[in-house]
Amino acid sequence: MTQFTATVTVRLKTGVLDPEAETTQRALERLGFELEDLRSADHFEIDLEADSVDDAAERVESMAERLLANPTIHDYEVEIDHR
Amino acid sequence: MTQFTATVTVRLKTGVLDPEAETTQRALERLGFELEDLRSADHFEIDLEADSVDDAAERVESMAERLLANPTIHDYEVEIDHR
Repeated sequence: MTQFTATVTVRLKTGVLDPEAETTQRALERLGFELEDLRSADHFEIDLEADSVDDAAERVESMAERLLANPTIHDYEVEIDHR
Repeated sequence: MTQFTATVTVRLKTGVLDPEAETTQRALERLGFELEDLRSADHFEIDLEADSVDDAAERVESMAERLLANPTIHDYEVEIDHR
């Protein structure tokens, strides 16, 4: 068993409204910052033991599908690193 | 002016309690997943125009300091990519 850290980034699909991001963007603009767009995402770092990178990726993708992301509105991305 | 996308990851400092992450970890365990630790973070993607990577990094760090992160409880990381 090897120790891995998986990073899961859960983003809203294009076209899904993100009022939190809009509010944050407007607040930054009110402070005088110039920006074209701001998107927010959830970011999870998961420490786990697995037999291989593939095993770790498969388990973490399954966590994303079942709990961390809502496939109707979210896209997600998994990255696996050795710890 | 060049177009950049900045990624800001805002994490709780070590030692700051994260009940949301604990709940998520326990929910995954209840679904039968084995993991050692789970940490959550906020992730912002900001599109902006700037003269250089350094200029973009400086402006986005300033956004993080003033609004995106709370320096008392958060650490943040900025990455700048060409768009």
